Amino acid sequence: MNQFDQETNFCLDADSRLTGTVHPHWNIGTNPNGGYLMALAASGMRQRCPKHPDPLSLTAHYQRPGLGAHSCTLDAELLREGASISTVRASLMQEGKQRLELLGSFGLLPSHSEPAQVSVAPPPMPEPDECIRRSGEAQGVDLPIMQRLDIRLHPDNVVKVPNGVSQVRGWARFKDGREPDSLALLLFADAFPPAIFGLLGMVGWVPTIELTVHVRRRPAPGWIQAQFRTQDLCDGRMIEEGLLWDSEGHLVAQCRQLAMLLKKP
Amino acid sequence: MNQFDQETNFCLDADSRLTGTVHPHWNIGTNPNGGYLMALAASGMRQRCPKHPDPLSLTAHYQRPGLGAHSCTLDAELLREGASISTVRASLMQEGKQRLELLGSFGLLPSHSEPAQVSVAPPPMPEPDECIRRSGEAQGVDLPIMQRLDIRLHPDNVVKVPNGVSQVRGWARFKDGREPDSLALLLFADAFPPAIFGLLGMVGWVPTIELTVHVRRRPAPGWIQAQFRTQDLCDGRMIEEGLLWDSEGHLVAQCRQLAMLLKKP
Repeated sequence: MNQFDQETNFCLDADSRLTGTVHPHWNIGTNPNGGYLMALAASGMRQRCPKHPDPLSLTAHYQRPGLGAHSCTLDAELLREGASISTVRASLMQEGKQRLELLGSFGLLPSHSEPAQVSVAPPPMPEPDECIRRSGEAQGVDLPIMQRLDIRLHPDNVVKVPNGVSQVRGWARFKDGREPDSLALLLFADAFPPAIFGLLGMVGWVPTIELTVHVRRRPAPGWIQAQFRTQDLCDGRMIEEGLLWDSEGHLVAQCRQLAMLLKKP
Repeated sequence: MNQFDQETNFCLDADSRLTGTVHPHWNIGTNPNGGYLMALAASGMRQRCPKHPDPLSLTAHYQRPGLGAHSCTLDAELLREGASISTVRASLMQEGKQRLELLGSFGLLPSHSEPAQVSVAPPPMPEPDECIRRSGEAQGVDLPIMQRLDIRLHPDNVVKVPNGVSQVRGWARFKDGREPDSLALLLFADAFPPAIFGLLGMVGWVPTIELTVHVRRRPAPGWIQAQFRTQDLCDGRMIEEGLLWDSEGHLVAQCRQLAMLLKKP
């Protein structure tokens, strides 16, 4: 099995409880990445609604940092199973404490969608080989997750010095060749450097308060193209919004997060 | 007391349960408006965290239509009270069934915010007196909510005939003169006609699956200016995103919803 599926796996125990592990290979510094924790939780949540495996709209509130290399349990509850949508809530627990609280609507995306009636086309981008690999070195932080993910940044968005635009663009795929799906899009929605760094430089730490991802269609195999922007920073909190396209140029996900901007001391 | 506060009021009963009423004055057709139901639920949720009255990020999943002129209860649970943020989940129940499931982060917005570091300026708009009152007649539906709210639409966005742009712009305030606050912004986030009508005409019914509102700062007294756009319609589901500004031109809320487009038979 590939790394991502192996490391977002929940087992049902005898009491119908979902138990798993937060694997340390998806850390940013010493904390598990927020997109990984969301994907991990979603893999458990959708066990409650087998007919509806795709997260159409999933919101996570980050209450405490996750613990890498620790076991976890997921208290997941199917609230309503409709014909086309199931609503599920969940708490991701470690050491007896809630780490993430989640609420989502799950459905079944068509294997072949019709062309979108209204959509946003992907902006022009240099090919992945002409982009720069995301590395912890550039950010002054250890990034174990970059052993799992291949993230390439637009050369204009590799910021040691701010460039005046709070935007980051790039490409994402798994290093082991696993193809993208709706679960992977949750991870990719939070796998790029904060867009605000483009405007202000690497000013500090940007912990997520809440992340919502809308998966819009099943991605084709290949690279995922992404664009993130922050247009709204006020009182130390900001909103970052993202768009993800598949290798055929289809818009496959939109995301938005509320985050705190904690300046370096 | 003004109408909105009176009609989004929950009482704590002897068992510490929150009980209230879904008032019929906020209906769209025969169903309570989704923004009203969110504001109603939020008014109960924040009773669980008195130090944090402002919904910084609130997500509602709409499971069943609400029932106007019926009592309701709110099962609201404080999940975590932090120094600056409290996380609260809730189910809005009527006749023993969940209508809305909600999850939110609440905080205390400063009474006087610093100027935003990054923001979106309001687009040019004709004054409210040069705009057109939203009426049910134009939409072919009875709109009791327009007895409570004064919604003015940009003359270009009053669409009996589509104009090729999935956008709606306008102004909002309460008819009885109540000034806007963070709770009112939840209501205003869902009080305009669907933006998609501008592109496709009044093609049908647009039930919300999920609505998330981020309140960014306390609004100044006066009109709220709003802009909603749909850039993404695929497989019968669409995303509408909105921006709300106060009378001083500050961005006070952002919102996004996933909705179904159900065509008229």
